[in-house]
Amino acid sequence: MSEPILQELHYLFHPKNIAVVGASPKSDPMMMNQGNNYIKGSIEQNFSGKIFPVHPGAKAILGFQAFPRVRDIPDSVDLVIFTVPAEASVEVMKDCVEKGVKFVHLYTAGFGESGREAFVKMEKKLIDMARKNGIRIVGPNCMGIYCPEGGLAFQPFFPTTPGPVGFFSQSGQMAGMFVMNAAAQGLRFSKVVSFGNARDLKAHDFLNYLAQDEKTKIIGSYLEGLEDGRSFIEAARKITQKKPMVIFKGGLTEGGSRAAMSHTAAIAGSSRIWRALCRQAGIISVTSLEELVFTLSALQRMPLPGGKNMVILGGAGGGSVTMTDQAEAEGLKVPQLSPETIRQLETIVPPQGTSVKNPLDVGRRFFAEGNFPKILELLRDDPNVDALIFMQPIAMFSRFGGRAGISMLLKMTIAGQKILKKPMVLVVEKNDGFGGDRIVKEAIERYHAAHLATFPDFRLAVRVTGYLAEYQAFLDRQEG
Amino acid sequence: MSEPILQELHYLFHPKNIAVVGASPKSDPMMMNQGNNYIKGSIEQNFSGKIFPVHPGAKAILGFQAFPRVRDIPDSVDLVIFTVPAEASVEVMKDCVEKGVKFVHLYTAGFGESGREAFVKMEKKLIDMARKNGIRIVGPNCMGIYCPEGGLAFQPFFPTTPGPVGFFSQSGQMAGMFVMNAAAQGLRFSKVVSFGNARDLKAHDFLNYLAQDEKTKIIGSYLEGLEDGRSFIEAARKITQKKPMVIFKGGLTEGGSRAAMSHTAAIAGSSRIWRALCRQAGIISVTSLEELVFTLSALQRMPLPGGKNMVILGGAGGGSVTMTDQAEAEGLKVPQLSPETIRQLETIVPPQGTSVKNPLDVGRRFFAEGNFPKILELLRDDPNVDALIFMQPIAMFSRFGGRAGISMLLKMTIAGQKILKKPMVLVVEKNDGFGGDRIVKEAIERYHAAHLATFPDFRLAVRVTGYLAEYQAFLDRQEG
Repeated sequence: MSEPILQELHYLFHPKNIAVVGASPKSDPMMMNQGNNYIKGSIEQNFSGKIFPVHPGAKAILGFQAFPRVRDIPDSVDLVIFTVPAEASVEVMKDCVEKGVKFVHLYTAGFGESGREAFVKMEKKLIDMARKNGIRIVGPNCMGIYCPEGGLAFQPFFPTTPGPVGFFSQSGQMAGMFVMNAAAQGLRFSKVVSFGNARDLKAHDFLNYLAQDEKTKIIGSYLEGLEDGRSFIEAARKITQKKPMVIFKGGLTEGGSRAAMSHTAAIAGSSRIWRALCRQAGIISVTSLEELVFTLSALQRMPLPGGKNMVILGGAGGGSVTMTDQAEAEGLKVPQLSPETIRQLETIVPPQGTSVKNPLDVGRRFFAEGNFPKILELLRDDPNVDALIFMQPIAMFSRFGGRAGISMLLKMTIAGQKILKKPMVLVVEKNDGFGGDRIVKEAIERYHAAHLATFPDFRLAVRVTGYLAEYQAFLDRQEG
Repeated sequence: MSEPILQELHYLFHPKNIAVVGASPKSDPMMMNQGNNYIKGSIEQNFSGKIFPVHPGAKAILGFQAFPRVRDIPDSVDLVIFTVPAEASVEVMKDCVEKGVKFVHLYTAGFGESGREAFVKMEKKLIDMARKNGIRIVGPNCMGIYCPEGGLAFQPFFPTTPGPVGFFSQSGQMAGMFVMNAAAQGLRFSKVVSFGNARDLKAHDFLNYLAQDEKTKIIGSYLEGLEDGRSFIEAARKITQKKPMVIFKGGLTEGGSRAAMSHTAAIAGSSRIWRALCRQAGIISVTSLEELVFTLSALQRMPLPGGKNMVILGGAGGGSVTMTDQAEAEGLKVPQLSPETIRQLETIVPPQGTSVKNPLDVGRRFFAEGNFPKILELLRDDPNVDALIFMQPIAMFSRFGGRAGISMLLKMTIAGQKILKKPMVLVVEKNDGFGGDRIVKEAIERYHAAHLATFPDFRLAVRVTGYLAEYQAFLDRQEG
C-alpha cells in the first residue's frame, strides 16, 4: 500500500474548481444531458469552489458563466469532466495540458470498449498525453465521482450528508443504482467512484485510497474484471483486517463474461476461483446488488456474530420449518438451546401452541405481557446462541394491535438490543399482504436511527448474517 | 384417482350450516379467539347457511344465537369446527356423532404432535369414533378451509372474490401467509385448505379433490412430510399433464426436519430425492413462499416458454452483466440474437451508448420514439428467443419522465404483449431508491389487470421463468 495515494488523489475528490466540457444551455427537464447533471449535482452538494461550464457558443449555463474552451477559463481548475463525443476528446485534453489541470474524468465513451481500431488508438493517445503531463484520468466510459464532502455528485438527487461507506465500481449504472438503493436503506457515503475502462487510475488505486481515507469505515465495490488481480487481492488481504470489504463481482458466467467484455473490455474470471481468492483475503463476496447493500448495512449496524448458531424468534409452525431450512441452506445452524435456557423458558412461556425449541415460538400474546427482556437475558447467557434472528411482522402487528401494538414492539426491540449484547437481526417484511406500507417504512427508519440492521426478508437476513460470521472467522484466523 | 372424491368432500367446502365450538362472547379486537375468527370469516364471505356458535353459557355470539352443545342445535349441521382444548374434544365428537354431522375440522392442537402419550391415544380415539360413524376429519392442528364460493374463511380479512388457484397446506401459518401474499399479487382462490396432522383426510385427498374441481385451474401446496409419498407422486404425475402444480416443501434440512417433526409429526425427506421425484412427476418444486406465489402468478398470466433462451431488455452496462450472470446461474441462456435480428436492430437503435447484443440496451430516449413495436416484431420472429425479460424501472421513469412517461411505458408494454406472442416477463422493481411506491403499485395493478405477470426483482423473474420452461419440457416429454 503506497502511502502517498491519499495525497495523490486528494484533489480528485476535493477539487478547488471544476470544469464541465459538454454542458448545454438547452432546457433539460428529463436530465438527458449528463454534463448538466454534473453541474446540478455539484450545486445540490453545495460545492464550495467555482464551476466552469465549457461550451463553444453559450454565454451561461445553469447560471454559471460558460467558456468556449478549457484554456479560456480565467482561474485554476483541478478537475475537468469530459462529456463530449470521443472524437472531440483529444482537443480537450490538449487544453487541459495547457491549463495545468490535475485530474480529468472521461464520462465520454466509445473508446477501447467499442472495439473500433481508430478509437482504441485514440484512447491510447489520450492516456499517453495525460501521463506525460502529470494528469491523472478517471475512465473513460464512467460516471466518475460522488463525494458529498467534496461537493461532487454524478446525479443531482444523491444524498447530501456524508457517511462511512466508500464504494468503487467498474460500472456507472451499478454505481448509481447502488447509491440509490443503499441511500434508501439509510446508508451514507464518504466517496463513490465509477471508473469504467480504468485506463489510468485503476481498481486497486481506489481501493488503496479508500483504505487510507479515514472518512471511509466500510468498503464496497462492483467489479467485472481485474487487470492485476493478484496485487489487488494482496492489498485487500491487509485492508480487510482493518476495514470490512464487500465485493459484488459481475461477469462470472459465460454469458455475463461476454456482456462484460462488450461493456468495459475487462477480462472476467470463473466464479469458483474468485470466491476462493475472496475467502483467503477476507473479502465478503456477494452475488447481487441487494446483498451488497444489506451486507454494508449490517456491517455498519450490527456487531459481527461470534459463530454460526442462530436462534430464530417470532415465527410459528410452517414458518419455523422453512426458516430453519433456509438458515441451514445458507450454512448457519439452528441448534437446540442449552437445557438451562429451555428450563427457564418453560417457566415463562405459555404451554399451548408455542415452542421453546429453536425456532422459538412464544405466541402473539406473550410479547404483550412484557416477558421479552427475560428471553433476551436467557439468550445472552446461552453459549449455544451467536445471534438472534427476530421476525417482525410489523404489518400484521399493526393489523391486530394497531399503532399501540407497533409502538410497543419497536420500543421493546430497541431496548432489547442493549440487553442481548449479541447481533440482533431484524426481519421487517414488506410484501406480506397486510398493507401498512407506511407503517413498515416508519418502523424501518426508527430501527435505522437506533443503529439496528433490518432486512426485507428472512433469506437475505440469513445470507448476510452468514457472510458476517465468515468474516469474523477470517479475523479470528488472522489473530491466531 | 377415485372419481367420487369431488362428491365426497363437497359439503366440506360448501356446507349448508356450520357450528363453531369454542367461540366466545368476549370482545376480541385483537382477533385472539380463533373460534370467533371463523365466524367473522364466514360473515365476511357472505356464508349463505346458518352459523351456530357453541358455548356453555353464552346466549349469543357475534349476533348469532349460541347453543351450549352441538346436540342442542335445532337444525342439521354439515361442518363442525373445534376450537376447544384437546381435553374437551372427545365429548364434542360424541355430540357430532349424535347429531349426524358430515365433517369436523379440528383447529384444536396438542394431540399427536405434542408427543404426550395420553394425547396421542386421545387423537386415535377421536379418529376411530369419527370413522365408525362416517364423519370425515380435517386436522387436528390446522386452520381448515378457505373457500370464497362456499362462504368459509379462517381469517376475516381474506378476499371475497374467488379465483383459479387451489392450495393445500400442512401448515396453517403458511396457508395464511400464502393467501395474504398471493392476494397482494392479485391472485384469487377456489379452495384453500390447511390440514395439519392429517389423521383422516390427507394431502392426496385434497390433491385429488383440487384435480377434479373445475373451479381450480392451478394447484399450489406447502408440504412438510408425506405418509404415502409414492401414491401422492403417482397421482401428481397424471394431474400435472392437465393442471400445473407447484409445491413448496419444508423440512428438507436436518434442522428443518427436526422442526417439522415437532410441528406436525411428519417425516421429512432429503431434498435431492424430493427434487428428483418432482422432476419425474412434472411438479414445480419451489424453495420459498415468494417463489410459490410468483410461480402461481406466472402460470396464471404467462404462456409457458418454449425453451430457455432469454432476451433481456431495459438494463444497461453493469446491469446487463449481472443480469446475464443471474439468468445463466438459474440455468437459462442469454444467447446472441440471430444475425438478421442484429442487422435490423442496427438500423433503428441509435449507435452510441447502446448495445444490440443480448442483453439489449436501446437507451432511454429510444422508448420515447415509438420504436418498441418494431423490436418486439424482431424478437417474435427470432428463433433464438423463447421469452423476453423486460426490466421496467418504473420509479426511475417517473422521476425522469413523470406521469406521462409512465403512462406511455405501460401502454406500450400492454400493447406489446399482443405483438410478441412469446412470454413477456416484466420486472417491476420496488426498492430502487427512487421512491414512487404508489406509482409502482399502480403500475403492477394495471399489468395484472392486463394479464401480465410482474416480478419484484430480476433474480426471482429468471428463477420462475426457468421453472416454467422446465414444466413445458416435461409436457413435451409426455407428448413425445
